[in-house]
Amino acid sequence: MKATVYEGNKTFSVIEKSIEEPAAGEVRIKVAFVGICGTDVHVYHGNMDKRVQIPQTIGHEMSGVIDAVGAEVKDIAVGDKVVVRPLDDRLQQESDKGISHICEKLKFIGVDTPGAMQQYWNVPAFTIHKLKAETDLKLAAMTEPLAVACHDVRMSELKKGETAVVLGGGPIGLLIAMVATLKGAQVIISEVNEARVAIAREFGFTVVNPAQEDIIAYVQEVTAGRKADVVFEVAGVQPSVDVMTKLAGIRSRVVMVAIHAQPKSVNLFDFFWKELKLIGARVYEKEDYEEAISLITSNTLGFEKLISEVRPLSAIQEAFEAIDNNPAGIKTLLDCQ
Amino acid sequence: MKATVYEGNKTFSVIEKSIEEPAAGEVRIKVAFVGICGTDVHVYHGNMDKRVQIPQTIGHEMSGVIDAVGAEVKDIAVGDKVVVRPLDDRLQQESDKGISHICEKLKFIGVDTPGAMQQYWNVPAFTIHKLKAETDLKLAAMTEPLAVACHDVRMSELKKGETAVVLGGGPIGLLIAMVATLKGAQVIISEVNEARVAIAREFGFTVVNPAQEDIIAYVQEVTAGRKADVVFEVAGVQPSVDVMTKLAGIRSRVVMVAIHAQPKSVNLFDFFWKELKLIGARVYEKEDYEEAISLITSNTLGFEKLISEVRPLSAIQEAFEAIDNNPAGIKTLLDCQ
Repeated sequence: MKATVYEGNKTFSVIEKSIEEPAAGEVRIKVAFVGICGTDVHVYHGNMDKRVQIPQTIGHEMSGVIDAVGAEVKDIAVGDKVVVRPLDDRLQQESDKGISHICEKLKFIGVDTPGAMQQYWNVPAFTIHKLKAETDLKLAAMTEPLAVACHDVRMSELKKGETAVVLGGGPIGLLIAMVATLKGAQVIISEVNEARVAIAREFGFTVVNPAQEDIIAYVQEVTAGRKADVVFEVAGVQPSVDVMTKLAGIRSRVVMVAIHAQPKSVNLFDFFWKELKLIGARVYEKEDYEEAISLITSNTLGFEKLISEVRPLSAIQEAFEAIDNNPAGIKTLLDCQ
Repeated sequence: MKATVYEGNKTFSVIEKSIEEPAAGEVRIKVAFVGICGTDVHVYHGNMDKRVQIPQTIGHEMSGVIDAVGAEVKDIAVGDKVVVRPLDDRLQQESDKGISHICEKLKFIGVDTPGAMQQYWNVPAFTIHKLKAETDLKLAAMTEPLAVACHDVRMSELKKGETAVVLGGGPIGLLIAMVATLKGAQVIISEVNEARVAIAREFGFTVVNPAQEDIIAYVQEVTAGRKADVVFEVAGVQPSVDVMTKLAGIRSRVVMVAIHAQPKSVNLFDFFWKELKLIGARVYEKEDYEEAISLITSNTLGFEKLISEVRPLSAIQEAFEAIDNNPAGIKTLLDCQ
């Protein structure tokens, strides 16, 4: 079979290797599509060389079909269409309070352990979510990022009729905007990149470019002074952190989706004065995956428009290079079939 | 009657003025005791000269007895022992979502309008909470700060058996520690001022001086790695903000009680990674006052030990000067009788 490996130094190799039998408790998946995530791009840029064991196969946004089932695996059969929830929580401890999806010793499959950018992939059976027979495997490769969005929106406790501002119109921002719209919220996306502004508008979203328009005044006006009930901080930059507490109305919630590698200057007075809540939200739980799968299966949201490009697995190097050259693109899939 | 007025320039005057009849909807209180709050000290220092209308009578932590009742006032009678919840929310708007205690145009009585540091005080009847006949008026002057603590603990959703770390062992920190203990939590106070450390220990609290001991390691150890379930940030300084996200365990809550006048450097990654919540908490609601009054009336917490000094109203200038000279003192009351 073909597999790809990250070799360090912005380089992927495509190699031939033998197909392995799944161990007890594992399944083998014939991988269909793998999405390239921002995290994968971070790996490609060398930012995660301390965490990734080079050479390593990466990738965790995927869909596929069960190809073989190891001993002791129940309720999963060859031919099942599946996606993987790439969280290995087997090292969870008492001090994790049963919150397994972010347990202290969590292994993220596809970063800390081998990933999906290969034709066949062996994973623990407990990571499997089954799809319906009619589910589109290309769309299903969007399950993982969509589950992130489902988790973020669930953590925000967003209610029908509320106003949500999404700071950042990249893939996760757009997915959050879609899920928030489904919940009956009025959604406003803030995005400075005009190419991404255009894409978000194609989806029918209200988009404000804060470099061109005063987004605080805009939100203030369209909510009759109530401001946002929920702000999703997805951009990960200081200007977003500056504006998030200004966009939030009294007792509103700010959901921290972005990965801020460095501490940021935060207006804690606004949190005190307006009794705001800051809610950290990371990855997803089982129910978020189930919700994402249900949305993918019904396919009413137009996810296919999020897929900017599909390239063959063997073109992985070109795929990553193209992403660097077009930062406004939304989602590239690798076709592993 | 005697009244005091803040004249600016760290100066209070004691003046004679006539006792006024309460207007319709108002009551007149014969003030018993008034506590000096950190906010009053800020006023004295001139930090709030833009907000306070000089010359002005300040003060909002108080107890007293109803002396006269204006027209249209129901269920309040001369002779009733009372405290005032000093929030005038009459300018609340639709955009405040019914969250009146922190509505945008809230007037804080005793800062934005005349306060309690006088012998007779006219206030709107809706601010009144009645006490029981047997309630100690000296202790009752602690109702307002105790209600702050009740609000902070309620907003934290602290549960029995959880561990709470209180960053800052001043009056509000101690009151939060008391209320948290009542809820059945294991409480640890962090305080750098040795005089305050000693006072907190007299109350039986576990106190760590983070200048002398690694508080993160301490909390980690006593919770078997679980860390704090709730952290109350009451200190208002950068080192507390730095440590608050480190002391918090997975999905723990950090309550922002302190007034951070300037933005602070905050580790937003910790909020994301551990799915922490930051909860802003300001003043109190009706139910917090009721809880505080109930605790004052039953008097099982030893609040009287929090009262460092009682001085006559006429000694207001000396009282504020003494606070400046002894920043470790907990609570000074002015006796207005």
